[in-house]
Amino acid sequence: MDNRKIEPRTLKGFRDFLPHDTKRRKYIKKSLSKVFELYGFEPLETPAIEYEDILLGKYGEEGDKLMYRFEDAGLRKVALRYDQTVPLARVIAQYQNDLPFPFKRSQIQNVWRADNTQKGRFREFTQCDIDIVGSTYNSSDAEILTVINSSLTGLGFANYRILVNDSKIFEGIDNRAVTIIDKVKKIGEERVRDELRQNGLDEGILDRLKGTQATDYIKQIIEIAVRMGVAPERLVFDPTLARGLNYYTGIIIEAELEGYTAGSIGGGGRYDNLIGMFAGREIPAVGFAFGFDRIFDALEELNLFPRFLITTKALVTIPSPDKVNLSTEISLKLRSAKIKTELWLDEPDKLDKQIRYADKKKIPYVVIPVDENTVELSHKSPTGEIERKTVQIQNLSNEII
Amino acid sequence: MDNRKIEPRTLKGFRDFLPHDTKRRKYIKKSLSKVFELYGFEPLETPAIEYEDILLGKYGEEGDKLMYRFEDAGLRKVALRYDQTVPLARVIAQYQNDLPFPFKRSQIQNVWRADNTQKGRFREFTQCDIDIVGSTYNSSDAEILTVINSSLTGLGFANYRILVNDSKIFEGIDNRAVTIIDKVKKIGEERVRDELRQNGLDEGILDRLKGTQATDYIKQIIEIAVRMGVAPERLVFDPTLARGLNYYTGIIIEAELEGYTAGSIGGGGRYDNLIGMFAGREIPAVGFAFGFDRIFDALEELNLFPRFLITTKALVTIPSPDKVNLSTEISLKLRSAKIKTELWLDEPDKLDKQIRYADKKKIPYVVIPVDENTVELSHKSPTGEIERKTVQIQNLSNEII
Repeated sequence: MDNRKIEPRTLKGFRDFLPHDTKRRKYIKKSLSKVFELYGFEPLETPAIEYEDILLGKYGEEGDKLMYRFEDAGLRKVALRYDQTVPLARVIAQYQNDLPFPFKRSQIQNVWRADNTQKGRFREFTQCDIDIVGSTYNSSDAEILTVINSSLTGLGFANYRILVNDSKIFEGIDNRAVTIIDKVKKIGEERVRDELRQNGLDEGILDRLKGTQATDYIKQIIEIAVRMGVAPERLVFDPTLARGLNYYTGIIIEAELEGYTAGSIGGGGRYDNLIGMFAGREIPAVGFAFGFDRIFDALEELNLFPRFLITTKALVTIPSPDKVNLSTEISLKLRSAKIKTELWLDEPDKLDKQIRYADKKKIPYVVIPVDENTVELSHKSPTGEIERKTVQIQNLSNEII
Repeated sequence: MDNRKIEPRTLKGFRDFLPHDTKRRKYIKKSLSKVFELYGFEPLETPAIEYEDILLGKYGEEGDKLMYRFEDAGLRKVALRYDQTVPLARVIAQYQNDLPFPFKRSQIQNVWRADNTQKGRFREFTQCDIDIVGSTYNSSDAEILTVINSSLTGLGFANYRILVNDSKIFEGIDNRAVTIIDKVKKIGEERVRDELRQNGLDEGILDRLKGTQATDYIKQIIEIAVRMGVAPERLVFDPTLARGLNYYTGIIIEAELEGYTAGSIGGGGRYDNLIGMFAGREIPAVGFAFGFDRIFDALEELNLFPRFLITTKALVTIPSPDKVNLSTEISLKLRSAKIKTELWLDEPDKLDKQIRYADKKKIPYVVIPVDENTVELSHKSPTGEIERKTVQIQNLSNEII
């Protein structure tokens, strides 16, 4: 096979994450995990490939169509992970005697959906879920709200609101009407009324819903969440919030960022009829899925990614072949001081090439050894200003830290 | 569909990682990443699914057979990631103008191989690679050795050796003989001589190889690695080490743990003919793959996983319904002090159930609120001794930290 004739390319809907983006993704995972751990949510990993019958029929017709399904070498019908909730339901049934209940788990893994890529969607994307399985108590609903709140604060978001509703308030209302009303934030009240009318539905439903007061259940959850540390103004009752009716059996939750184009950065709620699907009995659950890609976009849009993600702090250059040993010693010294340091690994000499390397990797400090005791240290600020000074090697770590 | 009739199960060769193991896996990833970052290796992520022609024919006939291949919805022939080196080669060709060279990347992702599961192998497993692409200089070979050394030290291993060899010393020796000699650590010298004889090969080769001195190239690399901070006794020249001849074009590396049954916990070397496969030119590279699962097993076998992986530190119980608010406040106080804390989320009352929960999650501190100012604090040591005392709420954080 002549590999040069194979065009290096990724499949439509799939992408590489080069280091700059991978570091940002790791930052988000770390920041969220830290909060999840503070509240005792423990990480779970399930396989990428499941028996097809575990996943099929759980996501509606559309889901079955978008699922990656194939036969493995043993002609077993298998499918790729489509979400993290059905695998959680399987895990609950499979290990119910070993798991502590309420079972609080977090899960951050990729899922695959052969979705339309024209909408800017990707066919491999990251899901980030937290769920509490096995408790019907309002304190678990409230804890989910509290973890959402701490997570968004932890990521540095300042202007967000956590919208909540009670699925019970839709009882007795035509499903079609609820689906239309759910779109009010996207398309506005006028168009919702138009659509209701066009579908022969009572357009007065919107105003009646808007006038609805929070149910006692929602009031109690909000009260507990506030006691758990959430600022009351973060929690907003929104009687038009539906998010996939038929799924939620209690609180419905959506997190919304002000100043971010796409608005919602995650959703969830209580769903007491789903997790028990393999166990053959009802198992209550409440959870939330963070929109990982949306959080990424929002942090970028709002310029909230921290600067310290520039991992390497210093490049120790080798200005001439006779400096190889000196440069190596300096790099050892800096690393021993826990400073993320690179030693130039290619051809000694050609200092301009080495400085271009530092620029490309956004390494702020460039060390140029002068003699056994001295280096020239150049520092490039985030705004591009360059400051040069001569530094004693024994003081170098302190200059850089 | 009646889901109760679907047996909750994973496919043969696939497994769930419940929280206890997932936490340990995260610990290994974090520990290794910390070292990789100290040396300026930056993380890369590539898609799970690639065009089949990118992967096919790169791993020999056996590889093609074990690869998960299927047609996606658009009838494109695709395959699941089989290793991380071929995707790296694709990335190098695809983004060569954007990447800094030498390109130092780390990658920790899962790969899929439909391998024989009877050998205790899994069909989804984690690879952990570091590579330096684009430098022929010995300092890059030495840096790989140094990163291996720091990684193993960082994980707490005390007795390891990094074996090195030069692929050049096999020049002029029959490939079949090299393959047999490579097994000497597994099967012993006697059986190697037997096998050589049985294959009509000169059994004297083993002794001649064993008498070989390290080449200048290897001596130089070792010298640089020592200057980079590796203790000389860690680096051992082993002229019988081959690890897949035809692949390596310079140094060959294997990391070996004393006191660990399986021995090797990773391998690598210089391979200057592979990474350029899609770019249509030779691109030098040197790298190392940590055996992630073996590291996991070794840490367990040698009892080196740290105890602090027990993430939740304290459970705040609710001994009776009237204590709900007090318990909630105490949990807020502990979390504000950054103590990983759980608040009991199920039925108030039934203290024994709550204590069993703490036991199951290995939560060392159990807090039982008494009145507005006081709690009973019980602490279970790792050896199972329980100590109880009455503590003022205002001093609780200090008692637990």
